Amino acid sequence: MLNLGLNDAIVESMLAAAPGDEVVARWVFDNYRRLIQMYADVVRGVDLALFEAELSRVKEAAGASTDVELSPSNLRDVISAYKRVFEREAGEPFPQDPWKQLYEAVAAVFASWNNSRAVRYRQINEITGLLGEPDAPPRARRWARHVAQQPPAPLARPCPRPPCAGTAVNVMAMVYGNRDDESGTGVLFTRNPSTGEDELFGEYLFNAQGEDVVSGSRSPRPIAELEERSPRLYAELLGTVKRLERHFLDVQDCEFTIESGVLYMLQTRNGKRTGPAAVRIATDMVAEGLVTKEDAVARLVTPKHLDQALHARLRDPDAADADLIAKGTAASPGAAAGRVAFTAGEAEEMAGRGLDVLLVREETSPEDIGGMHAAKGVLTARGGMTSHAAVVARSWGKPCVAGAGSLRVDVSAGTAVVHGTSTVVRRGDWITIDGSSGKVYLGSLPMADPDAGSGELGAFLEWVHAIRRMKVKANADTPEDAARAVQFGAQGVGLVRTEHMFFQPERITAMRRMILASEHDEQVAALAELEPLQASDFEGIFRAVGAAGPVTIRLLDPPLHEFLPQTKEQQSSLARHMGIRTEEVRAAVEAMREANPMTGHRGCRVGITRPAVTRMQARAIFTAAKRVAADGVPVQAEVMVPLVGVPAELKHQAALIDQVAMEVFSGGAAAAATTHDGAVAAALASGVVYRVGTMIEVPRACLAAGALAETAEFFSVGSNDLTQLTFGYSRDDAGPFVSEYLARGILPADPFVHVDEEGVAALIAMAAERGRAARPGIPVGVCGEHGGDPQSVHVFDRMGLDYVSCSPFRVPVAALSAAQATLLARKYRLYRGCGPIFFAPFK
Amino acid sequence: MLNLGLNDAIVESMLAAAPGDEVVARWVFDNYRRLIQMYADVVRGVDLALFEAELSRVKEAAGASTDVELSPSNLRDVISAYKRVFEREAGEPFPQDPWKQLYEAVAAVFASWNNSRAVRYRQINEITGLLGEPDAPPRARRWARHVAQQPPAPLARPCPRPPCAGTAVNVMAMVYGNRDDESGTGVLFTRNPSTGEDELFGEYLFNAQGEDVVSGSRSPRPIAELEERSPRLYAELLGTVKRLERHFLDVQDCEFTIESGVLYMLQTRNGKRTGPAAVRIATDMVAEGLVTKEDAVARLVTPKHLDQALHARLRDPDAADADLIAKGTAASPGAAAGRVAFTAGEAEEMAGRGLDVLLVREETSPEDIGGMHAAKGVLTARGGMTSHAAVVARSWGKPCVAGAGSLRVDVSAGTAVVHGTSTVVRRGDWITIDGSSGKVYLGSLPMADPDAGSGELGAFLEWVHAIRRMKVKANADTPEDAARAVQFGAQGVGLVRTEHMFFQPERITAMRRMILASEHDEQVAALAELEPLQASDFEGIFRAVGAAGPVTIRLLDPPLHEFLPQTKEQQSSLARHMGIRTEEVRAAVEAMREANPMTGHRGCRVGITRPAVTRMQARAIFTAAKRVAADGVPVQAEVMVPLVGVPAELKHQAALIDQVAMEVFSGGAAAAATTHDGAVAAALASGVVYRVGTMIEVPRACLAAGALAETAEFFSVGSNDLTQLTFGYSRDDAGPFVSEYLARGILPADPFVHVDEEGVAALIAMAAERGRAARPGIPVGVCGEHGGDPQSVHVFDRMGLDYVSCSPFRVPVAALSAAQATLLARKYRLYRGCGPIFFAPFK
Repeated sequence: MLNLGLNDAIVESMLAAAPGDEVVARWVFDNYRRLIQMYADVVRGVDLALFEAELSRVKEAAGASTDVELSPSNLRDVISAYKRVFEREAGEPFPQDPWKQLYEAVAAVFASWNNSRAVRYRQINEITGLLGEPDAPPRARRWARHVAQQPPAPLARPCPRPPCAGTAVNVMAMVYGNRDDESGTGVLFTRNPSTGEDELFGEYLFNAQGEDVVSGSRSPRPIAELEERSPRLYAELLGTVKRLERHFLDVQDCEFTIESGVLYMLQTRNGKRTGPAAVRIATDMVAEGLVTKEDAVARLVTPKHLDQALHARLRDPDAADADLIAKGTAASPGAAAGRVAFTAGEAEEMAGRGLDVLLVREETSPEDIGGMHAAKGVLTARGGMTSHAAVVARSWGKPCVAGAGSLRVDVSAGTAVVHGTSTVVRRGDWITIDGSSGKVYLGSLPMADPDAGSGELGAFLEWVHAIRRMKVKANADTPEDAARAVQFGAQGVGLVRTEHMFFQPERITAMRRMILASEHDEQVAALAELEPLQASDFEGIFRAVGAAGPVTIRLLDPPLHEFLPQTKEQQSSLARHMGIRTEEVRAAVEAMREANPMTGHRGCRVGITRPAVTRMQARAIFTAAKRVAADGVPVQAEVMVPLVGVPAELKHQAALIDQVAMEVFSGGAAAAATTHDGAVAAALASGVVYRVGTMIEVPRACLAAGALAETAEFFSVGSNDLTQLTFGYSRDDAGPFVSEYLARGILPADPFVHVDEEGVAALIAMAAERGRAARPGIPVGVCGEHGGDPQSVHVFDRMGLDYVSCSPFRVPVAALSAAQATLLARKYRLYRGCGPIFFAPFK
Repeated sequence: MLNLGLNDAIVESMLAAAPGDEVVARWVFDNYRRLIQMYADVVRGVDLALFEAELSRVKEAAGASTDVELSPSNLRDVISAYKRVFEREAGEPFPQDPWKQLYEAVAAVFASWNNSRAVRYRQINEITGLLGEPDAPPRARRWARHVAQQPPAPLARPCPRPPCAGTAVNVMAMVYGNRDDESGTGVLFTRNPSTGEDELFGEYLFNAQGEDVVSGSRSPRPIAELEERSPRLYAELLGTVKRLERHFLDVQDCEFTIESGVLYMLQTRNGKRTGPAAVRIATDMVAEGLVTKEDAVARLVTPKHLDQALHARLRDPDAADADLIAKGTAASPGAAAGRVAFTAGEAEEMAGRGLDVLLVREETSPEDIGGMHAAKGVLTARGGMTSHAAVVARSWGKPCVAGAGSLRVDVSAGTAVVHGTSTVVRRGDWITIDGSSGKVYLGSLPMADPDAGSGELGAFLEWVHAIRRMKVKANADTPEDAARAVQFGAQGVGLVRTEHMFFQPERITAMRRMILASEHDEQVAALAELEPLQASDFEGIFRAVGAAGPVTIRLLDPPLHEFLPQTKEQQSSLARHMGIRTEEVRAAVEAMREANPMTGHRGCRVGITRPAVTRMQARAIFTAAKRVAADGVPVQAEVMVPLVGVPAELKHQAALIDQVAMEVFSGGAAAAATTHDGAVAAALASGVVYRVGTMIEVPRACLAAGALAETAEFFSVGSNDLTQLTFGYSRDDAGPFVSEYLARGILPADPFVHVDEEGVAALIAMAAERGRAARPGIPVGVCGEHGGDPQSVHVFDRMGLDYVSCSPFRVPVAALSAAQATLLARKYRLYRGCGPIFFAPFK
């Protein structure tokens, strides 16, 4: 807000209208002074400190300690001094033409859209494409056109026009909180933005203007003091803001001024709030009959709110900054405190003794899985949002700070030194990490627990699940994860990654023997050891999911060399175990090394060159399914073949799977001519429903989706790998250039965070279309990281996909996004009351 | 051929018709004997040796040394013995019903289509999809339908029907070359299949049947002896086969029999021939007025013929096998002999002393470029068709055998041991490699030089170039390569890989300094050293190409870490040179290491994060172009941005390029607002035409081709990388599973050899279509390895692409393929005379 419209002549005429009235004089002068100062700041960018210095000088000369002690003549001096400052700094006298003041101020506000602070704000909040540029989303472009087509305002002179759809200027008459002691100004929320409680929450400043709060020259008072001083005004205020709340149907964040006992509302907008507050406000407003459930889901709780409501957080983040020692990427939300362990073994050992542990590593690898699981949270010195630590931690809902670059981890010394400081963290020391901010603190800081089980959250989630069109499933590798996902409302498990199961110590050796075996028989023998272990994994998951939906199990995906020992010690140990020379193990590991493992010998390529692996996994799946079904638990087992590019790959693997199914369910050797329908019938007789499907994660699979659907009974889009291959970006290596691309605006967003609409999503749409043409009704879903990203969920909903699958802790977030997408498609505005805001493309 | 229709009763009736005539008796018995034996072999698979043993036994008992010495009664004994063998082995008596003999024989011939030898033959020759299977090409499927719809032959009994479109059976009356001394049998080519000379070329056997040649019991005589013995018959034969040649308009490979002085033609087919013979025959037949030039190009010379005609070859490959020591992949055609060098340095040093050198390496890397260039050929122990050695050797037309797995190369000992043998090849020993067969020989074997410059080849290529629709350009990195390509008819250079230029010793250090420089200024200083060197490279290429066409220069493509020193010695040396610690170099090398370099920080990602590199390269290009144009040489410089996936990347790089162009051509600092049109106009004023375009090699670029074409003035498809990303196959790692996929029939062909029609080519078609919609007439070509593959060239021609670009030595081959594709589109049959043969999908 900017006061305008005073000049020397108007000031003199106002003084002349109330001759000798010192209150009026002081008030007029004070406003003129403020006007010059703010105009200089906003329109001309003059440093405010120059004006403050003049004011101090006059106050000193007059012996006044506060502004109100200055006489009108002192103030006249101040105005003269201000005008001199203005002329010196701006290169012209302070403009006396009120119209010039107005138009220049309007132009300055429009121009502020592109100042560096505003640009940075939009970057942080991923607000793009508002400028009517070619890359703007269609609705933003339509809005920009609409604005451009508005007839000019009927003003005396041509007024500057908005440069974009992002900013506007209101011109109105001024009211004065500094008019007298019956005046003042305040801000308030209609409900508590921290807890959501239904109470006025705000501050008030007597005989002052709003900028006095900003300048810190006066301390505001709680809004309740206004009630004591003037119950009438307080009642009027309460009635007004509640009326605003009823009108906009959302918590209001209001500014108001009282001029000589008359209340004026200056501004109102929907109030920002914490996650728990958002859920409470939504359920309260539905209970009060103010909004419908649909309305509450559509616009009172954002996915970020829900995410925040589901994770532990620091009780007082501001106070915590005193203990801040490092900062990294906020890789998995929530806060955790624990004692430092530097190896996975230490972490497991300490957790075994009942200690809270944080695992601190240079970076993590699949061998650290045990320690990560034992820890309360993970902190790494290297890596980003898509590092191993980040991906695994998010999938478990564990806090993670990744890539805290100033940490120098020395495992052998058992220390982490903070580079450039004298801080040394030792094994067993307490630290706290905040995976929502990326901050690392010394010591154990107090936490606020999530009220995940609370009735409000539960009720809200029920509405969410009832509204959404798309199904939501979870990616889960353990019975515990699967059970948690079902609690959160997941309709089955969309992705079980079987490879994580092979890293456990009692299994990795058999796995390695299988990999290094040169003879088929040796491979089969090693696999036979693994089969019952895999079967019991699957059994647990089938039981945990039960009637909630299907369980989609992906066959082995990573290249085999990922399972081989890399250090000399591990290689010697394996050699001893296998009765061969270390040199042979080393040579085998060398021979399997790949230049580009991401596009190497992995996925179904392994299942085809080593069919015994597929047979073992299929047998484990069907054995487990049969056992669970025998107890009367419903089982839908979906076997998913990864990294398929040509239809013959899928046919090859599907034939193996069907044959194994026939063997397991008909209880004997299956004929080579086993058909899928025959095997399915045999399974059904044992109470097991099973399907064979494929990942869609190689661009060629999207092109060949029609032929794939002749075999596949479902498509699950692996959007991570599909993004890697569509862009040609290795997730492990893309960090440096993707961050530079984002900074330069070459990419509008990280395609691993938000699905790329023009490229990757277009390929997914092609896959869905061709697949459905060949097999009407084939379910198509997404099980990559994008499945838990609200913006991507909107894209998938618009494309008509059947489901998304994400980590258990993201299930509520994905469900809310899916519900909001459903409501958007039903023409609900996701935010309403203050004009159209384009939700989907920005958040 | 199989004689049928004799049985005991017919034999007896024939004997009764000529009582006491021993000649007739011997002839009848001999034919019956042969019939039983061949029927047993072909229809029942009985081992021929069993019959030979019986024959030997009777001959021994009769004291006869040759068959003709046997009396009719001896022969009757032979027949009885043969019948016993038949009954014992086949489990039933020899069939006396001539109709049974006929139908069983017909069925056996049809069944032979699927015997293992035939299957393997079709695999080797990539003959697929003939069986009316779903993956057959449309024309093959139509043909299979056509065959299936033919009415059955009007025979007494139902006859077996052909199982496929690939085989047929003719039934005809028998004639007998073993009738008497006025009888005989022979084979001939109507022209010499080795040289192409117009002379009968064949062999003749007096008083014999064809199988006597096969059994080796008699030595055939040159066809000229028939002329001496019977000028009349020879003249009739000559007249007949030349009439067949005129009818089929191709060299004929004929079989004939003379029965009692009467000539019968048994079979004729187009004759196989060597590459040089094919060219000679084609040009002769055009000169003789037998065929048109179009006909000659369409069906008398295949791409393989032309390739063979262009490379040196072993004079006598069969004799050479005595010296064979190893075998690998036939990675780059042609033969070469030289002394063994085990390092690039040795190779260069030896070549410097005027020696012929073969470089023998475990595998090659970009640092070996100098030694590979100095060598006559390259032999590696590891790698395949797409290894570094193979790709580079092919691009230079140098012979290469890759992945000779039995070689154990020990550089420090200076030996290559042939595993499992006592053969040791030492530094300086002579060896010979045949890159067309993959064979490695000890010693220096005699060579037959290509007649590349001969008038016939030149004339033929002129017709080829005149006919083809698609342009053919060359991939060339040096002025010499560019000049050779233009000689071969290349219409410009479609790909200059600038990175190869940085590996030369005097340049690599500056390159490394640039890479390791942390400050922009240091980078610019190091680049300033490289700029004049690059400019002189480009200058040479522009001069060599001149008016032949545009020169398309790709900006730096590989990741920067490929240029960094990997050994400790190299790292120390660089550290000394840069005045920093070795440790710092090592740390920097480590920090730049990538998990998946193929999809890492490379291509335009480097040009964007280090714009100084793009500026340097653009300046070198334009400086060179300006200098060459100043001498009156026409210059078309095309600057190509690699690895573009999003339009903003291309816009960013194009703006830099245009700015540099403006600086170079307007001779001063360019305004930031330089437009492409402005810069182009400035260049034109200096006589230089320049364009900015993009590689299409990332799947996303195909999807975004419309937006890319707003900036790009040409598209060059990098089909290698596009294949890698579309399939998700790393070329460096795909060997093991792709070879297994081919063996199992999961892939019909190696997609790096023949472009994948359903996947990769569909994406290319999408790019072309969207690009042309946005910028009508935008040239779209292919510069990957597929540009030189005949089968892929046909695919690209059908898609309507504008050009292909391949290595200089493949230019004639690609040109011929393009011409044949043009003629195919004009409804020329590429082979004709013996029914439709489906050219494009098989070769």
